[in-house]
Amino acid sequence: MIVAMANDASVEDVARVVENIRQHRLVALELPGGERVAIGIASAIPPDLRASLAELLESLSGVSKVTHVSRVYKLASREFHSSDTTVNVKGVVFGGNEVVVAAGPCAIESREQLFAAAEAVHNAGATVLRGGAFKPRTSPYAFQGLGLEGLKLLKEAGEAFGMVTVTEVLDQHDIDATIEHADVLQIGARNMQNYPLLRAVGTCEIPVVIKRGPSATIDEWLLAAEYVLSQGNPNVMLCERGIHPLDREHVRYTLDLSAVPVVKHLSHLPVIVDPSHACGNWRYVASMSLAAVAAGADALLVECHPDPSQALCDGTQSLNFRSFSEMMSGVKAVASAVGRSVSLAAG
Amino acid sequence: MIVAMANDASVEDVARVVENIRQHRLVALELPGGERVAIGIASAIPPDLRASLAELLESLSGVSKVTHVSRVYKLASREFHSSDTTVNVKGVVFGGNEVVVAAGPCAIESREQLFAAAEAVHNAGATVLRGGAFKPRTSPYAFQGLGLEGLKLLKEAGEAFGMVTVTEVLDQHDIDATIEHADVLQIGARNMQNYPLLRAVGTCEIPVVIKRGPSATIDEWLLAAEYVLSQGNPNVMLCERGIHPLDREHVRYTLDLSAVPVVKHLSHLPVIVDPSHACGNWRYVASMSLAAVAAGADALLVECHPDPSQALCDGTQSLNFRSFSEMMSGVKAVASAVGRSVSLAAG
Amino acid sequence: MIVAMANDASVEDVARVVENIRQHRLVALELPGGERVAIGIASAIPPDLRASLAELLESLSGVSKVTHVSRVYKLASREFHSSDTTVNVKGVVFGGNEVVVAAGPCAIESREQLFAAAEAVHNAGATVLRGGAFKPRTSPYAFQGLGLEGLKLLKEAGEAFGMVTVTEVLDQHDIDATIEHADVLQIGARNMQNYPLLRAVGTCEIPVVIKRGPSATIDEWLLAAEYVLSQGNPNVMLCERGIHPLDREHVRYTLDLSAVPVVKHLSHLPVIVDPSHACGNWRYVASMSLAAVAAGADALLVECHPDPSQALCDGTQSLNFRSFSEMMSGVKAVASAVGRSVSLAAG
Amino acid sequence: MIVAMANDASVEDVARVVENIRQHRLVALELPGGERVAIGIASAIPPDLRASLAELLESLSGVSKVTHVSRVYKLASREFHSSDTTVNVKGVVFGGNEVVVAAGPCAIESREQLFAAAEAVHNAGATVLRGGAFKPRTSPYAFQGLGLEGLKLLKEAGEAFGMVTVTEVLDQHDIDATIEHADVLQIGARNMQNYPLLRAVGTCEIPVVIKRGPSATIDEWLLAAEYVLSQGNPNVMLCERGIHPLDREHVRYTLDLSAVPVVKHLSHLPVIVDPSHACGNWRYVASMSLAAVAAGADALLVECHPDPSQALCDGTQSLNFRSFSEMMSGVKAVASAVGRSVSLAAG
Repeated sequence: MIVAMANDASVEDVARVVENIRQHRLVALELPGGERVAIGIASAIPPDLRASLAELLESLSGVSKVTHVSRVYKLASREFHSSDTTVNVKGVVFGGNEVVVAAGPCAIESREQLFAAAEAVHNAGATVLRGGAFKPRTSPYAFQGLGLEGLKLLKEAGEAFGMVTVTEVLDQHDIDATIEHADVLQIGARNMQNYPLLRAVGTCEIPVVIKRGPSATIDEWLLAAEYVLSQGNPNVMLCERGIHPLDREHVRYTLDLSAVPVVKHLSHLPVIVDPSHACGNWRYVASMSLAAVAAGADALLVECHPDPSQALCDGTQSLNFRSFSEMMSGVKAVASAVGRSVSLAAG
Repeated sequence: MIVAMANDASVEDVARVVENIRQHRLVALELPGGERVAIGIASAIPPDLRASLAELLESLSGVSKVTHVSRVYKLASREFHSSDTTVNVKGVVFGGNEVVVAAGPCAIESREQLFAAAEAVHNAGATVLRGGAFKPRTSPYAFQGLGLEGLKLLKEAGEAFGMVTVTEVLDQHDIDATIEHADVLQIGARNMQNYPLLRAVGTCEIPVVIKRGPSATIDEWLLAAEYVLSQGNPNVMLCERGIHPLDREHVRYTLDLSAVPVVKHLSHLPVIVDPSHACGNWRYVASMSLAAVAAGADALLVECHPDPSQALCDGTQSLNFRSFSEMMSGVKAVASAVGRSVSLAAG
Repeated sequence: MIVAMANDASVEDVARVVENIRQHRLVALELPGGERVAIGIASAIPPDLRASLAELLESLSGVSKVTHVSRVYKLASREFHSSDTTVNVKGVVFGGNEVVVAAGPCAIESREQLFAAAEAVHNAGATVLRGGAFKPRTSPYAFQGLGLEGLKLLKEAGEAFGMVTVTEVLDQHDIDATIEHADVLQIGARNMQNYPLLRAVGTCEIPVVIKRGPSATIDEWLLAAEYVLSQGNPNVMLCERGIHPLDREHVRYTLDLSAVPVVKHLSHLPVIVDPSHACGNWRYVASMSLAAVAAGADALLVECHPDPSQALCDGTQSLNFRSFSEMMSGVKAVASAVGRSVSLAAG
Repeated sequence: MIVAMANDASVEDVARVVENIRQHRLVALELPGGERVAIGIASAIPPDLRASLAELLESLSGVSKVTHVSRVYKLASREFHSSDTTVNVKGVVFGGNEVVVAAGPCAIESREQLFAAAEAVHNAGATVLRGGAFKPRTSPYAFQGLGLEGLKLLKEAGEAFGMVTVTEVLDQHDIDATIEHADVLQIGARNMQNYPLLRAVGTCEIPVVIKRGPSATIDEWLLAAEYVLSQGNPNVMLCERGIHPLDREHVRYTLDLSAVPVVKHLSHLPVIVDPSHACGNWRYVASMSLAAVAAGADALLVECHPDPSQALCDGTQSLNFRSFSEMMSGVKAVASAVGRSVSLAAG
């Protein structure tokens, strides 16, 4: 940790910073510069102390800025856990050599719709079925999901086609019921910093996908993972789904694909990409799925609907069965080009 | 609502859109353009139908874009409620001619700290005491607040100095306890789209301040207010606290002061500004407080701490008592310059 | 074009808008809505009139918003020119089935450095040599390029290895000298809206690459292309190089790869991707190059330096020869996976 | 300057960094941390060396990040020049105790229009007349300004009403003609990083206003000023005019008013605010003008047009005479509230 002092910091200010560092039994070194002084901490800072020490030092008189040399997260970092984490869900392995494809409708609307989608994506090679039972909607007047009824349908469909299932949980009260019916929990982008919810899923064992908030930095996203990991649940996966766009004329969000290699470099956790929400337009989804696999994504999360024009939620961005099947061919070819294959069936 | 068709939309695509509109008993008008066709809906669309109809139409084949002519929110809009809403909390009125100043520490740390802050801001003219008992922190290793103990101290301090109190609620489970101890609930920026929480506070009568999420558009923010209003709680206030910045070199967030006149134009709800979190640096807080009042803000929410260098949370951005008192003089002068006064005491 | 009137627009306001539209010999249709009125223009608007008419109408009393149904650019749009444009530079074809790779140092530093880079990237399969002679630098104290001396070296190196050359032009005064020495001109991101420069290159015949400004929307970028096209130069190519990032902790810019399929959908112009400037870190360049090709990019523009640790400009983001060669193997495999091949030699 | 090494940096990497620093006759100190090493430079780095040394060190193997403790700009910084710079233009002083108001039409359209605007804003108390002769327009089909004819009208109007004049220069070729006709040159936001243009105005003595680019950080903006200052022209002023907005639904840009106190803290140069371009809607201009003055702005740059509904450029954001006059009353009151007055007449 480096503490840069302000230009007008007094000798007393510098002494106070040095004193504070030493009180934590750490070694402080003064670095006199041209117009300013910086103070370096020349010993290992316990990870649990990093955030609070930085805060403390930043608040001292005369301090301009505190820079972390080591990361503020610990359990999520590759420094702490150097090999790739794999998450095995009933034989479907996220984070290994195989690329996993999760697909299905944005919202579960009916048995007929869900089973049709499950059958189609299963036949095209998806091993994971996605479908929302609890839907977070910007408008209180939009369709909010089927709730428990939707969860039951998801479980049935997963069993019928031998697929692993993933669904979003919005509310701590729904965690138990969701775990009973689904194999993987998803924390949505709007809840990436809903800390009570993160802590609650952290006390479970079920695998958790944390979607990146639309204005979350990489470090904030990894700290959200740290919340779950620090409660004891090691089965955490990260999902890039688009960040705030320059304008919404052509896409809903900007899919930040460079986050894939950056997170793979910083962290050991599996990285998933959701091109559907980011693009908000089915026309661009296949291109971005292929790009995600080329960039190193471990899995894709794609919306697919039997009849997008009748979807109750996000129909614009859903692939129909033919487009999905074509996309899968491309995904297999690109996976192979980068030395991977596509996971073909749940165990 | 205007439905712009794609350049390559077929005659059947256009007919399908028209048919769908008519099925909702609305009048559709075709507008042939140069290279494209647009379809206008020439009758009043019930507000409850707007969001879902737009979604439905956007999902139809050949549709390029759906534009709302009327707003997607209803209860929050000035079209629905043309006069300014005022929220009266024990005699302190938000949204009227008087500017309200709420101040206090970011986090409640101890009785001594809270009472010292309350006394100082009360003496300088603040009528509302702020202080966090449950703190949402980016890092799981940072100080998370005193919880119920903090709420009790807040209630005591409010009573001791005759001040109205405001505090953040993070978790539905804590709503009841918080209402027992505080006068106004705050929904933090990270929870602006935590819909279960918004609904839960919507079923209460207690006044609610909704902070704007750092990447929330004005419309998304007003739709968050709509969630609370639509559950029956009319006592909603909006708080601008900074949006995602260009860089974090000098400030934490960009305080979007133009949101003040924009929201006052679109909505009837009171608008509060929190310059402390946005700036992240006490040095800029007084200037931005004065600017907020000049821009038309109804209230300020400012951090003030007896000894910012010892604060457990956000000390960098807290004013000390002397700076706060100087700021209050400026706030009074600017309020007077724009034809308002500063609210001077709780009823 | 659709003109949405404000909620409080008067009957006279509506009449004035209708009158203005009719004065332009266009057909106006009124669309009475629930709380507002909209007015549609139901005849073809000449492209040259679109921008100014929209401005005029927006300025009228009672007008809330003007929405374009057709695009504001014309020559750059696929509506105007439906088949893909190809730009043939001495036999290297941009925009066809082959993916073109342009590589070389950020700045030309010496004959030795440039020739070493040219030989290495040529041997690895690049057909275009890039190198900056005039460097736009954020700080006036940073290295600004070799100027004319650099241009001469670039021409020599291009001839020596049978490569097409591309270099940036910053100043109208340098256009003639640059055309004498290079095959393709580049307009940098900082100059995307330098209209005198765009017009000046528009009067030439030499192919021009327009880099996207870091906060430019897709429409603003296509309008920059329109500036060049409207002066008579049809040889325009677009280059995505990253937009303003959420933070600069891990990358310099956010590479917006969804811009590739979006621009291919809206426009007929070739699309190039520069992953080096966006990432700002050589570690992520190969992944993003592969992703760009998977997303449909027609060409790559990559920085490569004999010894990045000694580079005078942007060494951090330059590949060394070994990394570049490995990247080329990946690019060839991914190009093949998406049904393309890599252009292998200038004609 | 602090050099943070990567987690996997070797002992040789560290030695190479230390060696490089010592070759520049600077003192290097090693700071061993927990998982990483940092190296501090413990002696004054000449400002001219800062940018290039940082670049060099960042490019070395094993280096993760270089952090500046002192600023990368020099002449623009308050560290270099501690007292406020004032720019005196024919008796109108920018940067002193008086707030200066510059107003006029976005574009000069005719003698009649310009003189009407000049008379109105002069009568309401503006001392500076603004008007564009060369207009940078996003679309090549929009009105581009009257050119030299416009400059002549500006000079006439300035003389007729005893006002100082300011106008934008887009092209180096137009600098001489512009200096002959106007008192202050403006560099537009799109040209903030047009370095040949910045250098060219840096060799003149005429005062220069540099508008902030919509995605420019504060440091990039101050480095643009440094380009002009480093060529010898000390008469530089900075103008905030809005940064890239979250969405363009309600405003064109986000006016970043916190930039005012930040720049006043970092630099000695006068700071101007242009609320018209940022808001893009006359309705919000007066509120934001008052807020700018409350935030500490030294001057305002406001658009005002005799008949905004007939303006050829940006009519939507122009005040009419009545609104301008009302705004001036508010500006005077707020200026007085913050201990300043409004400059009332050119000398």
